[in-house]
Amino acid sequence: MDKELKFAVIGGGSWATAIVKMLTENLNEVGWYMRSIYAVEHLKRQQHNPNYLSSVEFNLEQLRLTNDINEAVEYADYLIFAIPSAFLHTELKKLTSSLENKVIFSAIKGIVPETGLIVGEHFHDVYNIPFNNIGVITGPCHAEEVALERLSYLTIASNDEAKAEIMAEKLSSEYIKCKVSDDIIGTEYAAVLKNIYSVAAGIAHGLGYGDNFQSVLMSNAIREMKRFIKKIHKMKRNINDSAYLGDLLVTGYSIFSRNRMFGNMIGKGYTVKSAQMEMNMVAEGYYAAKTAYELDATSSTRTPIIDAVHDILYENKNPKKIFKKLADKLD
Amino acid sequence: MDKELKFAVIGGGSWATAIVKMLTENLNEVGWYMRSIYAVEHLKRQQHNPNYLSSVEFNLEQLRLTNDINEAVEYADYLIFAIPSAFLHTELKKLTSSLENKVIFSAIKGIVPETGLIVGEHFHDVYNIPFNNIGVITGPCHAEEVALERLSYLTIASNDEAKAEIMAEKLSSEYIKCKVSDDIIGTEYAAVLKNIYSVAAGIAHGLGYGDNFQSVLMSNAIREMKRFIKKIHKMKRNINDSAYLGDLLVTGYSIFSRNRMFGNMIGKGYTVKSAQMEMNMVAEGYYAAKTAYELDATSSTRTPIIDAVHDILYENKNPKKIFKKLADKLD
Repeated sequence: MDKELKFAVIGGGSWATAIVKMLTENLNEVGWYMRSIYAVEHLKRQQHNPNYLSSVEFNLEQLRLTNDINEAVEYADYLIFAIPSAFLHTELKKLTSSLENKVIFSAIKGIVPETGLIVGEHFHDVYNIPFNNIGVITGPCHAEEVALERLSYLTIASNDEAKAEIMAEKLSSEYIKCKVSDDIIGTEYAAVLKNIYSVAAGIAHGLGYGDNFQSVLMSNAIREMKRFIKKIHKMKRNINDSAYLGDLLVTGYSIFSRNRMFGNMIGKGYTVKSAQMEMNMVAEGYYAAKTAYELDATSSTRTPIIDAVHDILYENKNPKKIFKKLADKLD
Repeated sequence: MDKELKFAVIGGGSWATAIVKMLTENLNEVGWYMRSIYAVEHLKRQQHNPNYLSSVEFNLEQLRLTNDINEAVEYADYLIFAIPSAFLHTELKKLTSSLENKVIFSAIKGIVPETGLIVGEHFHDVYNIPFNNIGVITGPCHAEEVALERLSYLTIASNDEAKAEIMAEKLSSEYIKCKVSDDIIGTEYAAVLKNIYSVAAGIAHGLGYGDNFQSVLMSNAIREMKRFIKKIHKMKRNINDSAYLGDLLVTGYSIFSRNRMFGNMIGKGYTVKSAQMEMNMVAEGYYAAKTAYELDATSSTRTPIIDAVHDILYENKNPKKIFKKLADKLD
């Protein structure tokens, strides 16, 4: 039965492209929805995504390309969403096909701005998808290294372990190792929070703090993440597993991270608006800081780093002063 | 009484120089022993160390310079050792003055090759210094950033908390924050083990593994460190505190780390001998891997990363094959 299951990826960015590549290592056919008809046409002609990971060449016989999201949804049993959280709501509005009985994996790592929910909760609350049909695909994993077939590790989380196992099997290959977890809430929040900490790392760098401070910031961040996630969803987990600490490190230490770049500009004195305009995009950590702060405010966990990023981004506080105060709270 | 205490630093390298700089922020006079008469003379003429952190200018009135270790030992109540562990034994042989009643802080972070002991144990076992007179100064802290007065955090550990507090007070300043700990064994082993993990990070890089793997390696390393230290000395500690995780990160992610550089050469195919000759020095992690492995062998803790580094460095095993096997053990 397993062999008949069909998989489709929703998204045309680098992470979506990387996941399609992983799936093509195991499946004869992969559904792939991209919003842009231009990108679909280019792929059909040139066998690679024109905009992202364009070094990855696909075998067109393995791809079932479409720029109609409903076609992809109808095609597949397992749907993998890999689009920026800011576009999820708009994309889902196009749906006329039912998501009933679909297994939905989120590879999004963000907060849906319209609902303030993590992606799993959004599908559960807004589309009545049972948690047993929801999963999370999480790193640490830069898509660019998947393109290069550099060894990477994923964690696949779902309440229904059998579904996580199926997804893990389809993603695993010579260069991808998958671990299964039942901590769908924790891994998804970790993936969200790490973007805030990456913004914080960027702000610190922009303000002139060095590597010594960065390591202290990251070591405080993982302790803060542990407290935060424990408050949201208490269960037995090792916060130093790759899905939590590894994911924090790969983002917090990456100079290519968009969140870190955004933070860096803030630290250097750009306003939030001008940094966003300059980057021509909104970093996931920007939304995440607001949602996490508001959750935090109701739960009274000590989260000085999230608070600092929030106050700088949303209350127009002076980054230099806020980080001087933050530094006194770290140890 | 506290005001009358005298402090001396033993060592002429960059970390010794950084510690002297920290102390001069608080003390009218700091004893400073350097082996090289040339360096002492240069300092007296030019007000800076000729070889390390030469941008740091000292006020000569604050320095009590000597190239006679006995003079420094006789002068001070608190001695801070900051020389490579490989030279400690030779330096201590010069001692004719007694270490009795001296408080000895190690800023060394290595294994004494002649005894296979961490520095605190070496002073205890070989010189009969009671543990209450022994302390450890640990990072995460690159000396170069101290020279730039970039905010850095130290952990000062001693069985005798009052002595740790005194040392912390003398080192603290606008740009140095100190935390006190009673985990002298754990912090010192952490400082030793992180060098092995830094060698591992270098080997991985040399073999062509990327940032995704590096983050998984570090997240496994901190879990391995926790198991190892718990076995050596069980007590309540948070392995994600800066003295453990922070110190691991600042070294494991530093491309300037000598241990990482050494590992990188091994990964690229140099033999141990040729890498050491090329670098004109022996990385601390080289000795540490042997000692840790031998301790580990007797204690049956699962330490796949230490084992892998040991087998490559001491049993001439093929790095590529060993890391392929190691990768299967990580998650």
